[in-house]
Amino acid sequence: MTANTVVGVPKESAAGERRVALVPKVVERLRARNLSVVVEPGAGLAALIPDDAYVHSGATLGDPWAADVVVKVAPPNETEVGALRAGSVLIGFLAPLTDPGKAKALRERGVTAFAMESIPRISRAQSMDALSSQANVAGYRAAMLAAEHLTRFFPMLTTAAGTVPPAKVLVLGVGVAGLQALATARRLGAHTTGYDVRPEVADQVRSVGAQWLDLGIEAAGSGGYARALTDAEREEQQRQLGKAITGFDAVITTAQVPGRTAPTLVTAEAVEGMRAGSVVVDLAGESGGNCELTEPGEIVVAHSVTVASPLNLPATMPEHASELYARNVQALLELLVDADGALSVDFTDEVVAGACVTKEA
Amino acid sequence: MTANTVVGVPKESAAGERRVALVPKVVERLRARNLSVVVEPGAGLAALIPDDAYVHSGATLGDPWAADVVVKVAPPNETEVGALRAGSVLIGFLAPLTDPGKAKALRERGVTAFAMESIPRISRAQSMDALSSQANVAGYRAAMLAAEHLTRFFPMLTTAAGTVPPAKVLVLGVGVAGLQALATARRLGAHTTGYDVRPEVADQVRSVGAQWLDLGIEAAGSGGYARALTDAEREEQQRQLGKAITGFDAVITTAQVPGRTAPTLVTAEAVEGMRAGSVVVDLAGESGGNCELTEPGEIVVAHSVTVASPLNLPATMPEHASELYARNVQALLELLVDADGALSVDFTDEVVAGACVTKEA
Repeated sequence: MTANTVVGVPKESAAGERRVALVPKVVERLRARNLSVVVEPGAGLAALIPDDAYVHSGATLGDPWAADVVVKVAPPNETEVGALRAGSVLIGFLAPLTDPGKAKALRERGVTAFAMESIPRISRAQSMDALSSQANVAGYRAAMLAAEHLTRFFPMLTTAAGTVPPAKVLVLGVGVAGLQALATARRLGAHTTGYDVRPEVADQVRSVGAQWLDLGIEAAGSGGYARALTDAEREEQQRQLGKAITGFDAVITTAQVPGRTAPTLVTAEAVEGMRAGSVVVDLAGESGGNCELTEPGEIVVAHSVTVASPLNLPATMPEHASELYARNVQALLELLVDADGALSVDFTDEVVAGACVTKEA
Repeated sequence: MTANTVVGVPKESAAGERRVALVPKVVERLRARNLSVVVEPGAGLAALIPDDAYVHSGATLGDPWAADVVVKVAPPNETEVGALRAGSVLIGFLAPLTDPGKAKALRERGVTAFAMESIPRISRAQSMDALSSQANVAGYRAAMLAAEHLTRFFPMLTTAAGTVPPAKVLVLGVGVAGLQALATARRLGAHTTGYDVRPEVADQVRSVGAQWLDLGIEAAGSGGYARALTDAEREEQQRQLGKAITGFDAVITTAQVPGRTAPTLVTAEAVEGMRAGSVVVDLAGESGGNCELTEPGEIVVAHSVTVASPLNLPATMPEHASELYARNVQALLELLVDADGALSVDFTDEVVAGACVTKEA
């Protein structure tokens, strides 16, 4: 019965990682594509998905590392790389830009590895775009976090004793996470404003009901990202943002340049200029942060302003983050197997070639 | 300069109490009514309101206990009762129904005390209704907490890899807090449903875009509260709710009967019937809770369902909770002073008489 490809789902081992690479709903769909799925007992527990939900969807419980294809969320640690079979396939976030040694270790192990970060950003591969799906979760949670730490309401509130005005929320860096943060803050009743150095996103900002903050500095780059600013541009940007920021209750920052330290958009002086009780949520903490006062992974209060730098926000909403991720993995898997569920990898395919970071020799 | 009445604002002493009885904006208004305000240094710090904001609004920093009128949020502890001057006035939440000994202690101290809980619920006193203003904050935060602990999205999300459906949220007990919880959950994109034993609130539930859950059990009481159900009614209610609850991602409960233990609406069996990853937020924890698995003040996970019982939610959004409360206090103060800012208490006034729990002999 199991001549077809076996997909293994390990329990994630990274601290704080509550996601899991497949969810029961997606297991069902893979079963319908003639794939077998082996789930490590307890793999879904941190996402509050019990083992029996996987069994119910057609998976078996067992050792995921013996599988033909191992699907993970976070990059494998050294022990996990050692547990992979030579000749097997690994799919997951592999941090190819910041941890190139990982691909080398996997190559030495004889593993063919596909990095979810390296899926080309083309239309055909949108369904595999895990960076975007997880950024959606991060942006939603960032807006919720800002609301949670703000000492004030997001929505306008009218009571018999008077009215409190809606919060003003500014999002700096309007990619997928920034747009979702704007949309969520707006849902909650805040007045929203977006800023980016890529002028082409102004219409997207307006499409989620936010105002566009134009500082006259443009730096469109490649692959949908911005280029790094010159020193003079950076200084002018910080000066102008410092002035603008004082008028906002919450500032959410998401600005990253791939492979580089995140740019400083919110200076210590700008934070000092904010009204007491205001909030900065910095989503760029993993690459150093967009706020000068950010301490990655921590929540600090400075000048009566809360500066929160949450790491791995998608893991804080593990079921749906896992479900979206699992669908991305499913779309990639469907590209790698034939109709009978046997592995059949076409390395001349643009998406396959782009995502592959190392290939069994 | 200070022949007029002096209002004192102490720093709150209760654990976790981040609110303060007056905020700078309201201090300004009281100054315009010829009242002087003395704020204890650091009184606003937990609400991220710095001392200089009070000074800027016309208050002085000093000993609040020497004032003619002391305004507080939480009931005074023994030390604080001892700090009150004989002949002074105290305004605050005083828990008259659950802690009648407090009024006795204040009477023995020679203090005239007004309990915010005892303001009559009549139109003229709506601007003083601190129970409602704080319930608005609690309901908003309860919906946010449910969203925070749910492993899934509240809004529907459409991505290239597919769609996730909106969360289904049920609110049990639809007073001010329940209505605000429904409104906030709906803002966030959830499908909302409200339930109450008072049939007259069905229209209010529908007015915030929620469905009305009708179980055919009616128990309208007095003062806007429900009467306690009979044992047979309670059993039938639990049975029917247990069935209904299985369909919801999040259940927020707010059912309280004044002076009594909160009714059990969500049994352990009902929690077991919920989908893994779902959430119960129980706002009745202070009076024992509406969920059988509630541990007041704690967050427990049972059968892969998170049961959160936050205490004093208004304190988690201290600036606006304080601002709304301060406006309620301001409205009561304006009833107690004449145009020159001198105390002039008319004990024949229905609102004054209702709120007064003890009077200087």
